Amino acid sequence: MNWRTAIEKEIGQDKVRFDEDTRLKYAYDESRLPTPYPPDAVVFPRTVDDVSKVLQVADKFDVPVVARGGGTSVTGGPLPLKGGILIVFERMNQIKDISPGDLHAVVEPGIITGEFHKSVESEGLFYPPDPASLDSCTIGGNVAENAGGPRALKYGVTKHYVERLEIVLPGGKIHRVGRPTKKWVAGYDLVSLITGSEGTLGIITEVTLRLIPKPEDIQTLLIAFSDARNASVAVTEIILSGILPRTLEFVDKKALEAVKEQTPSNLPDSTDAILIFEVDGNPAETSVNVEKAAEIFLKFDALEIFMAQTESDRERLWKARRSVLPSLESKYRYVRSEDLVYPRTKIPDAVDLAY
Amino acid sequence: MNWRTAIEKEIGQDKVRFDEDTRLKYAYDESRLPTPYPPDAVVFPRTVDDVSKVLQVADKFDVPVVARGGGTSVTGGPLPLKGGILIVFERMNQIKDISPGDLHAVVEPGIITGEFHKSVESEGLFYPPDPASLDSCTIGGNVAENAGGPRALKYGVTKHYVERLEIVLPGGKIHRVGRPTKKWVAGYDLVSLITGSEGTLGIITEVTLRLIPKPEDIQTLLIAFSDARNASVAVTEIILSGILPRTLEFVDKKALEAVKEQTPSNLPDSTDAILIFEVDGNPAETSVNVEKAAEIFLKFDALEIFMAQTESDRERLWKARRSVLPSLESKYRYVRSEDLVYPRTKIPDAVDLAY
Repeated sequence: MNWRTAIEKEIGQDKVRFDEDTRLKYAYDESRLPTPYPPDAVVFPRTVDDVSKVLQVADKFDVPVVARGGGTSVTGGPLPLKGGILIVFERMNQIKDISPGDLHAVVEPGIITGEFHKSVESEGLFYPPDPASLDSCTIGGNVAENAGGPRALKYGVTKHYVERLEIVLPGGKIHRVGRPTKKWVAGYDLVSLITGSEGTLGIITEVTLRLIPKPEDIQTLLIAFSDARNASVAVTEIILSGILPRTLEFVDKKALEAVKEQTPSNLPDSTDAILIFEVDGNPAETSVNVEKAAEIFLKFDALEIFMAQTESDRERLWKARRSVLPSLESKYRYVRSEDLVYPRTKIPDAVDLAY
Repeated sequence: MNWRTAIEKEIGQDKVRFDEDTRLKYAYDESRLPTPYPPDAVVFPRTVDDVSKVLQVADKFDVPVVARGGGTSVTGGPLPLKGGILIVFERMNQIKDISPGDLHAVVEPGIITGEFHKSVESEGLFYPPDPASLDSCTIGGNVAENAGGPRALKYGVTKHYVERLEIVLPGGKIHRVGRPTKKWVAGYDLVSLITGSEGTLGIITEVTLRLIPKPEDIQTLLIAFSDARNASVAVTEIILSGILPRTLEFVDKKALEAVKEQTPSNLPDSTDAILIFEVDGNPAETSVNVEKAAEIFLKFDALEIFMAQTESDRERLWKARRSVLPSLESKYRYVRSEDLVYPRTKIPDAVDLAY
């Protein structure tokens, strides 16, 4: 028996595909590599036992295995560079439990991050990590890559919310690591070791996530500056003032032009850069922080401060921010996306350097 | 040359002690074990190079090494069970840097946690982890044990604040892991693996800690209940209401009696249990949360709500909480201290069981 037959026998024909259409469909991610990397087989497990059986067969026949979430990686994460078996989690996409009293949720890896947001928020809870691809990426992929997002400034990245993982090790053994408690400190922190390990240590089949109460109020400002350096100095001043915004994003002129239709139409002509500033908390807290922040922005010669008045205003603003990269990609032939890292206090110098 | 001479030669006689007084001084921790575990030598390094040299000698001569912070462990953490070399960090106790703009601090492992609190708070910053032993434990020990504290409810434990570590591996190699950035997600999370590893992976010689802005306001309530179960149900209700207190501590009648002198003298006679409830944030936020919480406490038949009016009121209250264990230990011959873990929603059942 070869490995293809073995897998079909173990988990059932309906969960395995070898046809070229399917193999090509999953041969890409968002890294825009011109070469496809088709797997030899695509499996769609329904349970952790399916995954375990696939890994047993792969081990026995020495076939490479790659796991795939939403395929939104820009670094080749889900690409089967050497062929073999691709495990796609589209059919393991359920929320198993949301516990408002205990402030956590248990999910299957294939759940879309944005859908998970909606579900927990409808119960008055909040899961902060917000990767730009949240409408199509999955929690399993987020954990494997330790995904961040703009809200990391206040709330941290995925690893700060992973309490427990079920993983399948190479060879098929099912392992559970971590505890769903806030103060758990006994033993090596294997949850953090696996989070961000990009599939190299095992395949994630269940995730228990810590939640927090949903902030009562959000206030979002778009601030236009005639000078990019002033905008970046204002960022440092905001942090020094003791305000911890949930997001504080800098968008320069070139990026702004690419998403023009989605930003306020009355942006001053002399706008060189904008900041998107968002605070959350209870209404008393957010309004104090918005006032304090506005004073700082004006001190650094803000041309104009726009405040999102409705949820859809806010949504539009964030849509603009999230579409900066795709818009640039459709406008220019070569776009290089990089994460630069500077100490907060050196951001103004970094902005100067970039200009 | 034997290992004793080798160490003296490598790091200097003034940093090494072999006398019995010194060896016995460091033969205990707070686990109240009747047997002393004296090391064969006590070294007091001043630099990471001293530590490296000690580990090189230890490796060469195959001598066990144990690191010691404040000696406040109740689990034998710093005890040299097999003798050998004890590394004491009393002379590596400096704050190397506090950066308000970048929200982090770099410290040597021997700094006392409570002193570090005072230093960062004097600059308008906040380091949340607050182990009960904060007046004598060290940051190095906190990292090695991944120490928690009452504020973990809102702010998490030590590992949530460790950004970067310098460690010395067995054999003396100096290693740096982690990055002092909030969104750092590349590679295996070795910082979390080392945090809480209890000295088994290496010896911590420098810690970079993430800080947050100091909350503008703190409100502390002591709530007396005639029925312990009601107090515990109120805990669950508080969390469900969306309030995230920075601490919410339950103290029962027996523990209360042990710390009588430090609690309000006008506590109702029928008090069966108290809660200590603390919220922080800006003043508008804390006052809203105190009102909401008070309503919940009254709904569950709180007898009385005391509000700390001054910083010294608050200090006294926390002193009482922190002295529960030592007071019980001085009053009773056998005291067993355990951390029980229940899902928050099951705490009332757990309290019933305990009675």
